[in-house]
Amino acid sequence: MSPLPTFADIQAAARRLEGIVLRTPLLENARVNEALGGRLFVKAECLQRTGSFKLRGAYNFLASMSEADRRKGVVGWSSGNHAQGLAEAARLLGVKATIVMPADAPTLKVANTRASGAEVILYDRVKESREEIGLGIAAKTGATVVPPYDHPWILTGQGTAGLELAEQAQEIGVTLDAVAAPCSGGGLSTGMALGVKGISPNTSAHAAEPAGFDDLARSLASGKKEKNEKLSGSICDALLAPTPGDVTFPLARHVLGPGLVVSDEEVLDAMEVAFREFKLVVEPGGAVALAAALTGKLPVKDRAVAVICSGGNVDHATFARALARRAA
Amino acid sequence: MSPLPTFADIQAAARRLEGIVLRTPLLENARVNEALGGRLFVKAECLQRTGSFKLRGAYNFLASMSEADRRKGVVGWSSGNHAQGLAEAARLLGVKATIVMPADAPTLKVANTRASGAEVILYDRVKESREEIGLGIAAKTGATVVPPYDHPWILTGQGTAGLELAEQAQEIGVTLDAVAAPCSGGGLSTGMALGVKGISPNTSAHAAEPAGFDDLARSLASGKKEKNEKLSGSICDALLAPTPGDVTFPLARHVLGPGLVVSDEEVLDAMEVAFREFKLVVEPGGAVALAAALTGKLPVKDRAVAVICSGGNVDHATFARALARRAA
Repeated sequence: MSPLPTFADIQAAARRLEGIVLRTPLLENARVNEALGGRLFVKAECLQRTGSFKLRGAYNFLASMSEADRRKGVVGWSSGNHAQGLAEAARLLGVKATIVMPADAPTLKVANTRASGAEVILYDRVKESREEIGLGIAAKTGATVVPPYDHPWILTGQGTAGLELAEQAQEIGVTLDAVAAPCSGGGLSTGMALGVKGISPNTSAHAAEPAGFDDLARSLASGKKEKNEKLSGSICDALLAPTPGDVTFPLARHVLGPGLVVSDEEVLDAMEVAFREFKLVVEPGGAVALAAALTGKLPVKDRAVAVICSGGNVDHATFARALARRAA
Repeated sequence: MSPLPTFADIQAAARRLEGIVLRTPLLENARVNEALGGRLFVKAECLQRTGSFKLRGAYNFLASMSEADRRKGVVGWSSGNHAQGLAEAARLLGVKATIVMPADAPTLKVANTRASGAEVILYDRVKESREEIGLGIAAKTGATVVPPYDHPWILTGQGTAGLELAEQAQEIGVTLDAVAAPCSGGGLSTGMALGVKGISPNTSAHAAEPAGFDDLARSLASGKKEKNEKLSGSICDALLAPTPGDVTFPLARHVLGPGLVVSDEEVLDAMEVAFREFKLVVEPGGAVALAAALTGKLPVKDRAVAVICSGGNVDHATFARALARRAA
């Protein structure tokens, strides 16, 4: 087994990403703080290039590959945000990218991936295996598979969001009691935890998941990798990975506290708060950590807490559903 | 007549605002750039504390007042964003604030102003004069009137957004050909122009206004202060000032190029693009400069252009209208 990724790996990734990713702002809202009785900070990764944090890991991966490998191209599979991040990283580095996406992925995510110049291959989520299709392409072309989360280069790339977050808190003189990030396979949440703890070791870190897709929360509780029963059925289309990764889980056990689980209704409410108070467009999967803070599952009272809003690639109809949660 | 505000005044304001206002990000989007054939940057002042740039001018004003005057309180009138900015500045500095707001102002803006601890007095936009009500309060209590735009302290406070924008462009090695900002009375647009030109003197600066409320555009063209015929009737509730200010206009003639005028439909389309591509919640009045860039009225092709999205305090129903401009 390879050694666990370290904080130094995240610092190295941050140097690779300098001038490439946006240093997304850390936002705070007086009314939200008043309502929660503490200080809640939102790291707005929905404003990141490609509309989610995924560019961090994908670019770090491609920039870490050998020049010879880059010439043979890359292949990946994703329901959307990793696809867009990977396609854009490939475009920036002049690498050919092929992306396998489910035919029922949000229209916007498919269109945006194509717009970055990647070749998109659609597959049937029920009948076909995206891994098989992707590995087939890799075998035929010599392209490198860029996994959505389960690789040290991906994890440490995503971890730069945590490093930034901790630096930004430090710059305004805030000691964070806790941080949380959305979790699908654990690349962002585990990477964030590692990045934050390198600067602020006493801050507790948590992964937030949608109800029914809380494989990491259950795995952290049981000490072994647990699986979700369902493969679909949450509004959080970005957070449906079936089980924690082989790279992410061993590290997650070291750096993450108990998992946070929220319902789709709580997610829609959090999206509405992001709209009304933070002026941010957050997609369902991007809002689960915010939802945990707003519902008190991640307590903010008398504390300083930061959450990552990880993406904003949401369809118009879904956003309209969130708006309808509260007329004003 | 007092001398015109200078770039040094904006630099002094920026020092007063340090640690108070958010350095809002300068965003860029690969797809939008591709579509426009140039580089378009969005300065996201909708993410500013209180949901608009208005905190800059209000805080700069209150911080510039004498301690004795601050003890007597402040009074202001506003359809919403200045109200919220002023109320929050007053809260931060421990000053009593009374705000006169139109009874038909967006619910959200009234509620938010009250939430900052200000006393809100509603008036009838047709039958009553907010100036009379405000001046009456000032006469009775000794409170200082904080005007929404027509004062050097307000103008130079808003101008810090332009200073920041120019610095941010410089940091990423971009020389801006043009900048634009939404305009009601001209505090932001004129201040921004002064702030940008202090760093980047060859950048042209423009104010954007809604059709029918283009008093500044017409005044710049004629060389004298022109008035709007209507007092209401645009979706841009924040941009309905009847005529340029006595402080803003003389400076505007020095620092602003020709005005930009956009329709309500173009504004709704720009809000939809801000949602879809920039993941930002922008209110109608906040989106007029973006609308000018997206429609080609402010050409972006083969150029580098920045626009300020000045506010995000929009009601749910209006935002839903913008979403409905394009199904996805």
